[in-house]
Amino acid sequence: MIGSEGLGNVFVGPSCPYGMIKPGPDNDLNANSGFTTDMSKPIYGFSQVHVSGTGGGAKYGNVSIMPISGDFETIKQESLRENEKVALGYYGALLKKWNIQTEITTSDRAAFYKFVFNSNTKNAIKVDLGRYLDESIIPDGREAQQFVGSQVEVISDTEVRGHTKIRGGWNNGGTYTVYFSAVFDQPFTSFSTWKGEKFFPNEKNQVDNGKKTGAMLFFESLANKTVNMKIGISFISSLKARENIDNEIPHWDFNKELAETQQKWDNLLQRVEVEKEASTEKKTMFYTGLYHTMLMPVDRTGENPLWENDSPYYDDFYAIWDTYRSSSPLITLLDPKREIDIVNAMLQIYKRDGYLPEARSGNSNGRTQGGSNAEVVIADAFVKGLEGINYKLALEAMMKDAMFPPGGNEEKEGRGGLVDYNRLGYVSTDYVRSGNRTLEYSYNDYCLAIVAKGTKRKGEYWRFIKQADNWQNLWRDIEDNGSRGFIMPKDSNRKWVDSIQCAATNGKISYVPYTPLAQDWPNCVCWWCGVFYEASSWEYSLSVPHDVAMLIKKTGGNEAFKKRLNTLFDKQFYNVANEPSFLSPNLYHWIGRPDLSNDRIHQIIDKNYNSSRNGIPGNDDSGAMSSWLAFHMMGLYPNAGQSYYLINSPYFKQTVIHQENGKDFTIKAKNLSDKNKYIKSVTLNGKAFENAFIEHSDIVAGGVLEFEMAATPSKTWGTKQVPPSKSDQIIEE
Amino acid sequence: MIGSEGLGNVFVGPSCPYGMIKPGPDNDLNANSGFTTDMSKPIYGFSQVHVSGTGGGAKYGNVSIMPISGDFETIKQESLRENEKVALGYYGALLKKWNIQTEITTSDRAAFYKFVFNSNTKNAIKVDLGRYLDESIIPDGREAQQFVGSQVEVISDTEVRGHTKIRGGWNNGGTYTVYFSAVFDQPFTSFSTWKGEKFFPNEKNQVDNGKKTGAMLFFESLANKTVNMKIGISFISSLKARENIDNEIPHWDFNKELAETQQKWDNLLQRVEVEKEASTEKKTMFYTGLYHTMLMPVDRTGENPLWENDSPYYDDFYAIWDTYRSSSPLITLLDPKREIDIVNAMLQIYKRDGYLPEARSGNSNGRTQGGSNAEVVIADAFVKGLEGINYKLALEAMMKDAMFPPGGNEEKEGRGGLVDYNRLGYVSTDYVRSGNRTLEYSYNDYCLAIVAKGTKRKGEYWRFIKQADNWQNLWRDIEDNGSRGFIMPKDSNRKWVDSIQCAATNGKISYVPYTPLAQDWPNCVCWWCGVFYEASSWEYSLSVPHDVAMLIKKTGGNEAFKKRLNTLFDKQFYNVANEPSFLSPNLYHWIGRPDLSNDRIHQIIDKNYNSSRNGIPGNDDSGAMSSWLAFHMMGLYPNAGQSYYLINSPYFKQTVIHQENGKDFTIKAKNLSDKNKYIKSVTLNGKAFENAFIEHSDIVAGGVLEFEMAATPSKTWGTKQVPPSKSDQIIEE
Repeated sequence: MIGSEGLGNVFVGPSCPYGMIKPGPDNDLNANSGFTTDMSKPIYGFSQVHVSGTGGGAKYGNVSIMPISGDFETIKQESLRENEKVALGYYGALLKKWNIQTEITTSDRAAFYKFVFNSNTKNAIKVDLGRYLDESIIPDGREAQQFVGSQVEVISDTEVRGHTKIRGGWNNGGTYTVYFSAVFDQPFTSFSTWKGEKFFPNEKNQVDNGKKTGAMLFFESLANKTVNMKIGISFISSLKARENIDNEIPHWDFNKELAETQQKWDNLLQRVEVEKEASTEKKTMFYTGLYHTMLMPVDRTGENPLWENDSPYYDDFYAIWDTYRSSSPLITLLDPKREIDIVNAMLQIYKRDGYLPEARSGNSNGRTQGGSNAEVVIADAFVKGLEGINYKLALEAMMKDAMFPPGGNEEKEGRGGLVDYNRLGYVSTDYVRSGNRTLEYSYNDYCLAIVAKGTKRKGEYWRFIKQADNWQNLWRDIEDNGSRGFIMPKDSNRKWVDSIQCAATNGKISYVPYTPLAQDWPNCVCWWCGVFYEASSWEYSLSVPHDVAMLIKKTGGNEAFKKRLNTLFDKQFYNVANEPSFLSPNLYHWIGRPDLSNDRIHQIIDKNYNSSRNGIPGNDDSGAMSSWLAFHMMGLYPNAGQSYYLINSPYFKQTVIHQENGKDFTIKAKNLSDKNKYIKSVTLNGKAFENAFIEHSDIVAGGVLEFEMAATPSKTWGTKQVPPSKSDQIIEE
Repeated sequence: MIGSEGLGNVFVGPSCPYGMIKPGPDNDLNANSGFTTDMSKPIYGFSQVHVSGTGGGAKYGNVSIMPISGDFETIKQESLRENEKVALGYYGALLKKWNIQTEITTSDRAAFYKFVFNSNTKNAIKVDLGRYLDESIIPDGREAQQFVGSQVEVISDTEVRGHTKIRGGWNNGGTYTVYFSAVFDQPFTSFSTWKGEKFFPNEKNQVDNGKKTGAMLFFESLANKTVNMKIGISFISSLKARENIDNEIPHWDFNKELAETQQKWDNLLQRVEVEKEASTEKKTMFYTGLYHTMLMPVDRTGENPLWENDSPYYDDFYAIWDTYRSSSPLITLLDPKREIDIVNAMLQIYKRDGYLPEARSGNSNGRTQGGSNAEVVIADAFVKGLEGINYKLALEAMMKDAMFPPGGNEEKEGRGGLVDYNRLGYVSTDYVRSGNRTLEYSYNDYCLAIVAKGTKRKGEYWRFIKQADNWQNLWRDIEDNGSRGFIMPKDSNRKWVDSIQCAATNGKISYVPYTPLAQDWPNCVCWWCGVFYEASSWEYSLSVPHDVAMLIKKTGGNEAFKKRLNTLFDKQFYNVANEPSFLSPNLYHWIGRPDLSNDRIHQIIDKNYNSSRNGIPGNDDSGAMSSWLAFHMMGLYPNAGQSYYLINSPYFKQTVIHQENGKDFTIKAKNLSDKNKYIKSVTLNGKAFENAFIEHSDIVAGGVLEFEMAATPSKTWGTKQVPPSKSDQIIEE
């Protein structure tokens, strides 16, 4: 339940790892996961598709199931709940209004519901295809889901099939269709389907004519009060949804299914073994972090309605802007075959849809926030040696992002503002989000260059490694809060923009100065229309993951940079609740002060993360926040797209990564205690290890990384060789 | 059967006007309509979806039905045919191999098949979801259809449902799914489904797992040898396909259904009533022309799987490049409510898919040949006063074409090469088809400007009316075959291109001079990669429908222009088999010589068109050729996008257009004979009419246009006021 309250927005309900079906309670139409822990909000149904941790407009919430007793006059039915119980692969609650106990477990594509009816009145199960999250009365409301059509078909007295078609949602995607089949362990005694608001007793079919439909299935006499239901979903057909049930849950044993799902998780989660003596709090935080990271993207291999299913297919990249930083690297570390499949799925999406995904959901590329960050995911896979990926095709896909403007829609896929970027070397204020787009494209270009170099494409390498410096075109030598140099907006005539128009009260248009702390959105302009997306220049100006050395130089050297970082954190210009500054607490490493990174990271975690329902400080964003935490608890943090991890003090005395290749990598922290929080010295396989960063290949090889912990920082460790930067490296010819 | 042999490629089989289902025989996997008249080619099935008159890679040919007797060992079954009979709404033939008589008629979305089995062996009906036209063994072969998946479900002993999913085809479109339901008037006695190559006797379901599936339905004892089958299709669901049957053919009377379909056609075709005494040949040619024009686009209102179905939806615009010239204007003249629906469907496609259609098929914009010619269709509707169209939205849609480059794919939708066009004023040789794209965009801009002006958008009007002169940027003052001035290729440095690289035999690269007669495709470059699409500069240089006066001026005046036109026709630089020169024989009108237009038009028709199977000289292209013919037989020809018709000698002494508004418009040709082939004088409603062109509004008002025919051309009629040209008109401020 970590992250189920506050901003976390995590999905509550059972799911398999990367599971396609995510059945869970809905009691808030506008909640991203459909759910709020608020016990005063009645549950109106249990729907089968959800996402986890997202923000903005909601998505999914399809095929809503509701057990009810007594009153069947109206389609809408809701009840408060009590005795709620949430466990791995399990959700259970009592619907108070009718005294119905509901339990849910799941397999990958089919869910198992157990309903115990305790009322002596008539009982029924409602299958509602007209409900979904974030329904809007405004046609084509931005980010809202729009109803397209639905169908229900009573196949027999133990099976109902159908589908629901919805479009829109947060990523403004095209229409997606969720097919389902629901089977029961005993016959319903009668039924009534509906279309619109009208019930049709005993009418088996309601054809899709663009109307809301559903079925009310009546169980008039129950032998043991219990009805078991299995529901399969599919994106291909309702018959395939039925096949998914038969393939995955060919029995009626709830506990057996629950155990199998838990076993799937155990197999994955046990790949990291922390010391048994660690506190439950820490272990809960850590393993929940892993769990959240492995909820999305979802594995829909075989379920792609758009093209052939002869290769892996994943959906709900939501969004790569969030997940490229730590989620993908965590999957690569713990579940590399999975990451290979995910990257291959991304390449198929490029091949068929024309662009790599950024915020893909409901089988639609549909939204970008800043960069074309699939480049980072691909480079990360490449530099970490993931095999079985066609990197030539990957380079082609990345170059499509970098060279072809996405056309009329500058926020759907590819790179919005690319015409500016390629002509001027930056995105001008003619486009929204010009600041973070320029920064992100620079890094995306770096990642592209790395893959170009590795695949022996020198021409492309030189072009894009040069473009990787484009962030410098928006670097303005101004001072703010004692620090010099910020990424600032520039217009298409290459003039700095000093003030921006801001609609004001009383009908007067006013201009506000644009400063590094300015936040033009959402007050002056729309949420996604500012110079920077969801953060200020203070945060974004530090976001140059490929060339921190140059950033330090431009800031005025190590001391000035240290001061700048201190200001960022001390004056709370840093936003713990979002991704743009994920790497920032680690930047002290580049001035040879890993101890200061350490201080900041532990402060951030200890203050903002815990095992409570409110234990994630921002939208978990498909596990982005959770994976950031999990990495840091192990003492490692990736710089995604590059081959190394930064080393920080771990939260565990021992962490063993049981790698997929069979080789264990052990991280030990000798003498770790609340007091002994600094790394004094390090050995790798018994040999002294001077750097505060370690290569992925060192981990893959297996071995032991041992920290000697102390109460005071080391004066030498991590000071001689700082982590790599583009401008420090000799560019090979 | 006109156009069923030679290049016509017309669909052979029953169809309703704009009918969604087009059931017909398939005996050639690579034929565009699936069919060749060649009696030596065996029929392998009767599929439910076809297009008419197209070229290039084929599309559709889905849900293949085949009655068979005796041998069920293999899935593939075929038979020669005899006693073929084709009539309006009807197809019949005897399958020789098994002596099975097959007859087909149809409603809009469901077809009626009658099979008479004359063999004493076992009989069966095969439903094959793995067959479709233009199957290619090359993955992603350009223009080829690719198999995605299929499903079959035996619902009862009288019904089978399922679907087939295919992508690609001529317009390189995305995946489309054809759902079907087939119902029988008597139970099949047993059945076997298949997946891949394997049969599964009595197995009811073959779920869509990306494999080819189907069902063999056995009729072991037939009371009267006859099996009737109704098959419905849908793009939403197989249940909806079933509903389409029940709604449209709620009986088992083949002849009743046939009569209803014929009545639908009669209601439409009778809107033009030619004199009874006209020859059967002429009447057949004329009414078949109307028939072909009304086969496509197809009305799929309520059957759009992509978004809400609360407004008209049409598919198979195939392609507007072909049909904007005469097909759309003919529908506007005879069936204006239909044209309003079609334009509204186009606007919905813009609204939801981002661009207006050009070559849309299988629910996918997918291909452009030259211009964004939806602009012409919209302008044509606008200037002809079609009401109930949101012209503001239409202008927005046209401006999307004109202002936003389509992104990575320069041939899918919108305007390929737009970046060049908007920067340089022409499309440079950096893009393929630069010549005709420049010409077509110029005219598209003219059309946009006209709608902008009419909707009071002055700024846009002035911008685009100026751009309508862009064709002049490629006008090169060179001489060829005695004429001066041609549209010629220019590179992006504004230099004329004199020669083009042409891969040659013996491994040597050679250059060939680029002349106005050069045809670089398909030998030097790919089919769609030449400077001009499917024609030479000699043809295209005359394609300036909005400013013929300027064209004449640039050519050197009336005499030079006459000589040029004469050369075009006499030296056979004119291609009767394609659309680019559709207007060319009428260009003599602009030098005051309608008699010469007349000579050319009648020569073309008399030499190339007739009522035989080979009676259409080129691909009919959804009725493009047929509508060109039909207009000319009435004595009118539209300049699509503009409000008038050119007047030529008709083929009928009297043509009455019974307009939808209730007002008749009669065209009389007094003394018309083989000898009296020139218009001597004209009256409109009894008053002298001097012009050789007439406004659409004059027709809409109803009345009588009477020609006095003579053996020699008039010296005065049509000479004073030539048809409008942009450069002749006073541009109002």
